[in-house]
Amino acid sequence: MSDAFATGMMARALQLARRGMYSAMPNPHVGCVLVRDGAVVGEGFTQPAGGDHAEVQALRQAGDAARGATAYVTLEPCSHQGKTGPCADALIRAGVVSVSAAMEDPNPLVAGNGLQKLRAAGIQVECGLLESEARLVIPGFIARMSRGRGRVRAKLAMSLDGRTAMASGESQWITGAAARVDVQRLRAMSCAVVTGVGTVISDNCSLTVREDELGLSPEEALRASAHQPLRVVLDSGLRTPPSANVLDSAAPTLLCHADQAVVPAAIIATAVNRLPLEHDKNGLDLHGLLDFLTARQSNEILVECGPRLAGAFLREGLLDELIVYMAPVLMGSDARPLLELPLQRMTEKLPLHIEDMRRVGQDWRITVVPRYQ
Amino acid sequence: MSDAFATGMMARALQLARRGMYSAMPNPHVGCVLVRDGAVVGEGFTQPAGGDHAEVQALRQAGDAARGATAYVTLEPCSHQGKTGPCADALIRAGVVSVSAAMEDPNPLVAGNGLQKLRAAGIQVECGLLESEARLVIPGFIARMSRGRGRVRAKLAMSLDGRTAMASGESQWITGAAARVDVQRLRAMSCAVVTGVGTVISDNCSLTVREDELGLSPEEALRASAHQPLRVVLDSGLRTPPSANVLDSAAPTLLCHADQAVVPAAIIATAVNRLPLEHDKNGLDLHGLLDFLTARQSNEILVECGPRLAGAFLREGLLDELIVYMAPVLMGSDARPLLELPLQRMTEKLPLHIEDMRRVGQDWRITVVPRYQ
Repeated sequence: MSDAFATGMMARALQLARRGMYSAMPNPHVGCVLVRDGAVVGEGFTQPAGGDHAEVQALRQAGDAARGATAYVTLEPCSHQGKTGPCADALIRAGVVSVSAAMEDPNPLVAGNGLQKLRAAGIQVECGLLESEARLVIPGFIARMSRGRGRVRAKLAMSLDGRTAMASGESQWITGAAARVDVQRLRAMSCAVVTGVGTVISDNCSLTVREDELGLSPEEALRASAHQPLRVVLDSGLRTPPSANVLDSAAPTLLCHADQAVVPAAIIATAVNRLPLEHDKNGLDLHGLLDFLTARQSNEILVECGPRLAGAFLREGLLDELIVYMAPVLMGSDARPLLELPLQRMTEKLPLHIEDMRRVGQDWRITVVPRYQ
Repeated sequence: MSDAFATGMMARALQLARRGMYSAMPNPHVGCVLVRDGAVVGEGFTQPAGGDHAEVQALRQAGDAARGATAYVTLEPCSHQGKTGPCADALIRAGVVSVSAAMEDPNPLVAGNGLQKLRAAGIQVECGLLESEARLVIPGFIARMSRGRGRVRAKLAMSLDGRTAMASGESQWITGAAARVDVQRLRAMSCAVVTGVGTVISDNCSLTVREDELGLSPEEALRASAHQPLRVVLDSGLRTPPSANVLDSAAPTLLCHADQAVVPAAIIATAVNRLPLEHDKNGLDLHGLLDFLTARQSNEILVECGPRLAGAFLREGLLDELIVYMAPVLMGSDARPLLELPLQRMTEKLPLHIEDMRRVGQDWRITVVPRYQ
């Protein structure tokens, strides 16, 4: 087959992969296309945890037509036994004769073993087609596998003059409806949503993914909202009201507090999961929190909080990306800052790479990556 | 001639008009195309004050071919004697048989008289072709004529988090080279550039248009820099150092001070023009300043200053447009605000209309119009 044909098939596989972005976690969302005699005979993408991997779904669709087929898959097929059997074995059994993978699996349990197993079974194997595009589809999984920490993204909303709330704390609804839909999708693609007790007290936010607020097709919205991210509240002194929305049963919650704090009986009565963390003048130990979330296989971690906690993540060099929704309004110089980040000299300023800037309804969404020195 | 042909000719006239945007002031920059037998026989645009108007330039280029021609002109031809003779008379004398003007002249001295004069001479006259486009070419002139005050635009540079300088005042070069070229062009299109004494003292800015920093063709750059905007320094207490760059001979300067301030001998010795203004706790009377600039026929007025003066213009409802250059950097929450604008409640927030947002080198330029309540 021509290069253009192969590239087209891999592009289709990447398109399929993205269908799992709201539901495949903690697995990477992968897409697979099976082709025989120039025709697509099977397609698949990673189903929610415990369900079929992309390859298995495509093989099932292809049935006998898989024999002699070529598989285009966005990530190296797994070779280890997880909740489901190894995909490499399934491809071999089905009689696939050629596999093109976009990238090797960054999971050290796989790392080339899947491709090796296929080669050993006499299958023709290629790796690297549309690799850079494939890496952009699963940045959180790659980060967790390659550096031992998922991708941490902060979502902030500000006025044109960089303010998030009036000095009094008055703040809700700075941005418009389209930006709120966008935030719902950020939550849906995340394994955990982190906030501070200040936000919990002032906004009584629920931090859930709501099926009817995602702006997705009914099928996609159902799949996306079936998985609720872990709600993480950073609350060193355990001030979260027992009646707070984040403690309801709509989604799992983790209450992080100072290891020496006394847990109020009313909190114990809620049976919420708790994580004691070390604590100093800068607040709770964020590295400790991220270690916990990594152990819980969190690929994408969304930080939705006020300027103090967002500033703390940034000062620790832990934010991989900031998504700033900018509302077309001036809130004035007495209002609260975007981030609590006390810098004194121009040499301390934090350079950013602007990845994307686009209109979202009446607001603008600015995506930046900090360039830590 | 077809509508499409006429529209094309007027679009060409608008293109010519923009060639005068850096040099025609205080006249509006106008373009003119003369067409006979379907062919362009003459083109012109407004020359620097005292020079030819667009129509006269086009007539000169056309020579005898103007007889029987149609003139496409972006603004109603003038009927009054200014520094040059009335253009309406010139068109009549040349034997033009038809005139299409994009818009009536908002100048009360003309306001339809020019078109009337042409009609009275038997010329076929139409008005309104591409009118909304034509109005966007000369907004400052229209504002001055229709409301008695030119268009006031503030230029600001900030970090992503809405800060303009460190708390210490350290600030220069937040934005990159491309943004500075852009600012040179804003100056070049302005009749006056207004700043505060704080900026003069901290930056020792010269506020001039520099031929080699405009990024224009040599011919355009020469024409643009031949006209230097009036430099206006708001300095209630007359703290401007006599050696400041803004007092040099590179451009005219106006020093505005409190009417009761004692003028230091060193300032008198510089022979700089001075304007005493009323003064209260909010600073100098900006309305008084704008009245003066209107009397001086200022169409476009650029405010290049710190957060205090920019905030004062905004609080008075005097800014028609803000151009904010956003650098990809965080300067932190101790740094100085974009605007000194003390608001306490969300209901006081100032809504904006975002007119344009685009990349300028490494920075982003955001153009907004305040929606005063």
